Amino acid sequence: MQNVKDYIAQHKDRFINELIDLLKIPSVSADPAYNQDVLNTADTIKESLEKAGCDKVEICETPGYPIVYGEKIINPNLPTVLVYGHYDVQPADPIDLWTSPPFEPVIKKTDIHPEGAIFARGACDDKGQMYMHVKALEYMTHTGNLPCNVKFMIEGEEEVGSESLAWFVPRNKEKLANDVILISDTGMIANDIPSITTGLRGLSYVEVEVTGPNRDLHSGLYGGAVANPINILTQMIASLHDENNHITIPGFYDKVEELSREERDEMAKAPFSLEDYKAALDIDDVHGEAGYTTNERNSIRPTLDVNGIWGGYTGEGAKTVIASKAYAKISMRLVPGQEWEEITELFKKHFESIAPKSVKVEVKPHHGGQGYVTPIDNTGYQAASKAYQETFGVTPIPQRSGGSIPIVALFEQELKSKTILMGFGLNSDAIHSPNEHFGVWNYLKGIETIPYFYQYFTELSK
Amino acid sequence: MQNVKDYIAQHKDRFINELIDLLKIPSVSADPAYNQDVLNTADTIKESLEKAGCDKVEICETPGYPIVYGEKIINPNLPTVLVYGHYDVQPADPIDLWTSPPFEPVIKKTDIHPEGAIFARGACDDKGQMYMHVKALEYMTHTGNLPCNVKFMIEGEEEVGSESLAWFVPRNKEKLANDVILISDTGMIANDIPSITTGLRGLSYVEVEVTGPNRDLHSGLYGGAVANPINILTQMIASLHDENNHITIPGFYDKVEELSREERDEMAKAPFSLEDYKAALDIDDVHGEAGYTTNERNSIRPTLDVNGIWGGYTGEGAKTVIASKAYAKISMRLVPGQEWEEITELFKKHFESIAPKSVKVEVKPHHGGQGYVTPIDNTGYQAASKAYQETFGVTPIPQRSGGSIPIVALFEQELKSKTILMGFGLNSDAIHSPNEHFGVWNYLKGIETIPYFYQYFTELSK
Repeated sequence: MQNVKDYIAQHKDRFINELIDLLKIPSVSADPAYNQDVLNTADTIKESLEKAGCDKVEICETPGYPIVYGEKIINPNLPTVLVYGHYDVQPADPIDLWTSPPFEPVIKKTDIHPEGAIFARGACDDKGQMYMHVKALEYMTHTGNLPCNVKFMIEGEEEVGSESLAWFVPRNKEKLANDVILISDTGMIANDIPSITTGLRGLSYVEVEVTGPNRDLHSGLYGGAVANPINILTQMIASLHDENNHITIPGFYDKVEELSREERDEMAKAPFSLEDYKAALDIDDVHGEAGYTTNERNSIRPTLDVNGIWGGYTGEGAKTVIASKAYAKISMRLVPGQEWEEITELFKKHFESIAPKSVKVEVKPHHGGQGYVTPIDNTGYQAASKAYQETFGVTPIPQRSGGSIPIVALFEQELKSKTILMGFGLNSDAIHSPNEHFGVWNYLKGIETIPYFYQYFTELSK
Repeated sequence: MQNVKDYIAQHKDRFINELIDLLKIPSVSADPAYNQDVLNTADTIKESLEKAGCDKVEICETPGYPIVYGEKIINPNLPTVLVYGHYDVQPADPIDLWTSPPFEPVIKKTDIHPEGAIFARGACDDKGQMYMHVKALEYMTHTGNLPCNVKFMIEGEEEVGSESLAWFVPRNKEKLANDVILISDTGMIANDIPSITTGLRGLSYVEVEVTGPNRDLHSGLYGGAVANPINILTQMIASLHDENNHITIPGFYDKVEELSREERDEMAKAPFSLEDYKAALDIDDVHGEAGYTTNERNSIRPTLDVNGIWGGYTGEGAKTVIASKAYAKISMRLVPGQEWEEITELFKKHFESIAPKSVKVEVKPHHGGQGYVTPIDNTGYQAASKAYQETFGVTPIPQRSGGSIPIVALFEQELKSKTILMGFGLNSDAIHSPNEHFGVWNYLKGIETIPYFYQYFTELSK
């Protein structure tokens, strides 16, 4: 398949420009203001799949944003790969921290990306990584190198919980029938240390509202006598961790899968420098659960983080007010074994129980998903491993990720097939952060590697 | 002085309309966006003082917003009353909780104000109460009832710490020389229970910033391994109170003036219904320092309240991010004995000391002021008491207020004279809150009462 390199060299500029055009559409699913942009992005994906060689492409309506489905069936007796990705992106704020506008993509060189990286919201998560699959399909169909059947399912609500996908999948099991699910929505350790994600964390995301007095009050006339909902909220949130940074919600750890010493020793072999890690984040110390290393804390252990907090006067200068309400968005990363709906319920019950009588508390569940693990003896994993060996020249390291792709567990449950997470992004790509970017080298390397997965998966499936 | 009632009846509509025009100018000193409006308000005050009969009125420049000074000297041998007030107002947000626009005054009837109340930001604090003095002067000068000399000093930075006034007063001691300072910037217990404020709390206002990683991070990839500045901030703030709601800052209570059992028993005589208090605020329970009553907690005890908090994603929907920074505005109400600058320093030192190594903390002092107490055997207090008896028919109750008028302590120090706090507002007027209002009855009652203060103060000073 030497000609894949040539094909990429020949079409490189077009591949990059097509992605840049896709990144210009602000498909922020969390913000209703971008509704039309999200819908337009779905149309753009549909056209790109048709051009790439799918026989049948359709925009499937759902209760929320549509799912773009495409397929190329060459022989019912051959295996079928189902590619999943998402065309929606995270909100771009805080906008003022971006060095270039989030939806005006530019290519800039960085230390890690000497060949340049595309800076834009969604460059890596997930438009860039999803589009690698579209271009890989184009190569395979245009050069007669497609060895099996392929289906695409690209959704528009991944960043807000994939509710419509959870509605769609059980209703379309036959259409989505496959032998393996292929996703590029994770990262690898480094450009010279490829890795395949074998585990994902689950997620439970809630919003809490604490109400004190029925109106904002003068902090002089009422201060000290009335519960200040912001003070109370800080006390309630602070109490969710103990002095060892264990989460204090009763029952929270009951179903946590504990890894063996051997597994933890295996994990510890992945190259990691705590000094580089701290330097990259400009922090003097890391912070986490006692008894676990940094790489364990962010992958095999559950967490509780406040993702946003607000209340009272946040403008210029000073305002001596006791706010009527205080709010926080809180997410918990879960590990295999923990049921996200059960955790959400445990949180709600506990958070309401610790509220003093002087305030009212409301907990609104947002969304969530299950954790997931892929065994490395699985055919799909083996095919992926050989594909990386082919294009990177080294064997990829199996790695647990701290991130969540809630629908992966859903796929296994509904479609009875395993998911292979072939990620080509890097932790330093700043996904979900200002100045998100994706290396041009990584983008093209992904397009080069994916066809080998199809080849090896077809061979190993015989 | 029977004719004061007639004069008010005759000019009532004009008095109300003049105040309404004044309230239409959004003189928010905390927000630079309103800079020109604040300056325009000063000009309006200047004109009103000229019309009211001052011989000499000037706009005195300062490093900040100007101070409007006016005087009417009828005889150097007679006593001089210095009236202080402020023409700036608190920010109006949260705007969406106002039932009518904050700078479009309307008169609406309420249960407590059957004759109607003027709803607008600043209606009570302090434009309405300050303007009572301008109209009282008009009555006295236009009817030959001014018994002594009068000086006005109206500033534009009271809501942001009166820094320019603190600069102005020491530089103009001769111009401001007086026998008593008269201020209406406080409240009374009820329309049938007049009270005079004899004590004020001091204030220390700070802003804190907690910085974790150098950029916003994906909570899946980093969650659990890196200090989340919002979680840390909630833990730091929560630790500032112990389980008895005592403030934990070392040295915080060292100079607190403890009241005698007798004084506390005297205070307890003021009519108060905890049930009504809770009902008015729609809270199931009050909340405060163990060992003190509600009225003690909000007047003779120091407090620490978060006035605003923000960080991370606060928009629609969900964003799984670990913010780089978290912020809070924190104010401490202080009691006589506590030095505000010392308390600010104690807070800064303590807050920085409790920060874990995994974050960086910055404490920015905003402003502050000293607490204050007026003895009730003071001539000014006696004159005010007789004035209320004249117009309300009952003896006013001396009352400690939880609020702060930082410059009152400054006046005593620089001008060597006592301040009399004749307030005509009510706690229910919602100052600093949405839907601030001032009863028309209270406004006119203030205009009626003030001239009696001048009369009795002149007589008692002989």
